[in-house]
Amino acid sequence: MRIFSGLSAFPITPMTASGEVIAEDLAGLVRCIEAGGADSVGLLGSTGSYMFLTREERRRAVAAAVGAASSIPVIVGVGAIRTDEACALARDAASEGAAGLLLAPVSYTPLEEAEVFAHFEAVASATTLPLCIYSNPSTTKFTFSPELVARLARVPGIAAIKLPLPSGDLATDLAAFRAAAPALSIGYSGDWGCKDALLAGCDAWFSVAGGLLPEAASALARAAMAGDRDEADRRDSAFAPLWDLFRTHGSLRIVYAAAQMMGLTTAEPPRPLLAINDDLRAKVAAALL
Amino acid sequence: MRIFSGLSAFPITPMTASGEVIAEDLAGLVRCIEAGGADSVGLLGSTGSYMFLTREERRRAVAAAVGAASSIPVIVGVGAIRTDEACALARDAASEGAAGLLLAPVSYTPLEEAEVFAHFEAVASATTLPLCIYSNPSTTKFTFSPELVARLARVPGIAAIKLPLPSGDLATDLAAFRAAAPALSIGYSGDWGCKDALLAGCDAWFSVAGGLLPEAASALARAAMAGDRDEADRRDSAFAPLWDLFRTHGSLRIVYAAAQMMGLTTAEPPRPLLAINDDLRAKVAAALL
Repeated sequence: MRIFSGLSAFPITPMTASGEVIAEDLAGLVRCIEAGGADSVGLLGSTGSYMFLTREERRRAVAAAVGAASSIPVIVGVGAIRTDEACALARDAASEGAAGLLLAPVSYTPLEEAEVFAHFEAVASATTLPLCIYSNPSTTKFTFSPELVARLARVPGIAAIKLPLPSGDLATDLAAFRAAAPALSIGYSGDWGCKDALLAGCDAWFSVAGGLLPEAASALARAAMAGDRDEADRRDSAFAPLWDLFRTHGSLRIVYAAAQMMGLTTAEPPRPLLAINDDLRAKVAAALL
Repeated sequence: MRIFSGLSAFPITPMTASGEVIAEDLAGLVRCIEAGGADSVGLLGSTGSYMFLTREERRRAVAAAVGAASSIPVIVGVGAIRTDEACALARDAASEGAAGLLLAPVSYTPLEEAEVFAHFEAVASATTLPLCIYSNPSTTKFTFSPELVARLARVPGIAAIKLPLPSGDLATDLAAFRAAAPALSIGYSGDWGCKDALLAGCDAWFSVAGGLLPEAASALARAAMAGDRDEADRRDSAFAPLWDLFRTHGSLRIVYAAAQMMGLTTAEPPRPLLAINDDLRAKVAAALL
């Protein structure tokens, strides 16, 4: 699927302390992403803190982002603990103009493979939008096996998968999922490893940095997708201090601070998440230079 | 705290496919629990699938349970991804007559210790009810260190902790938390290890089986709390086939099937959770004999 390829930029969803989406700030982030050359907006991903928002606020976020994006597709995260809620969120996203869906197997009770399969089948059939499997074991604690992905790839509507960086060799991981599901678009998240993932031939980079610094991320993505290793390395090394912070502290709290420093929003992360301390803010400021 | 000691029985929360609490079935479960001799009801725990219910349905569940319990306290799980939501749930529980609160550090984005501390502080101060720290790493992926528990024990209102069975030695684990927080009531969940935990001197057994077979669980709890090891062993061994199923398949799907077989409800687990298959149902039936 074309919409699940290239640089997909994941903005934060600025919200008030009580969880209302600040539509103006979100629209501004989306306009920056588009102007910066990203290929799609990855709205309401983990970076967009979708699980902290009510259904109504998630609908408002989609409306704001779709309204702000004039030519690039808006892909919308519709994960929820209940299957019926995830289906309803998918229908909401479709009716607000989303171009595609992202679905993570969010759970409280750890899920079994058969449950994840039925959940994805239900959400994929709730709309006609193409759906990207959102594998994010660090938040969902569910790990997709290539075998399960092969079965899911045969479900109508399932078009792509967003994978985490593997603990082992990336090329081996990519090859295993390619072999399991040749028809799926395959992308990675974990910004610090995505240059190598693109150079290895994956289709997409689902990027936190792309939601904040879309121009630099787009240039990196283009160089890596063109196989220009020297240029990709050069572009990637400029991000190295930011990648270090993402790896050490998690990217979410870091991008909130960065967005504030860049004047994009004054929103804080939703409680119980806490803003980072001043020492760490100074490191973020240095990494943005 | 007296309400956080002895056998706390955790019922399922029977609900319709669309997530409405079946108040009549829940009230029936609570009456059985009380008649069976449990010391408290652990409402809306993981077994009560609280994260699958809206705020309004959780309020209805508390009202139904409090209405059905004539003399034992109803302790209510108020975990939520947002701090403000957990505070609102705590106030709802208090206004519906709950005697105490259970709070797990539910999260999507993995939480840091400072965030968990501030979250617990906020919820503990939202009502005057005593609060039990609900440590459940298998669902929340957060592990409480004795050091964090020592700090939380100094927060007004925090009165108890519900611990998972440790991977190592239970007596060592109990001693570490006793030393860290001598004022807290300390209980364990993980039914298959709770006889030993009670014999080792913990204060409470937070029990899934107690929500289903309260009489047998109460007899086991009383024997173990009285230090009658032979009687406790005998009572515990009658549960061995059920403990095996809980350990192998997770207790939630098993207790739904058991509750159906016992005629307590026709409710199914909430999707994406699936009912167990016929082979496994036969094993559950045999374990209930």
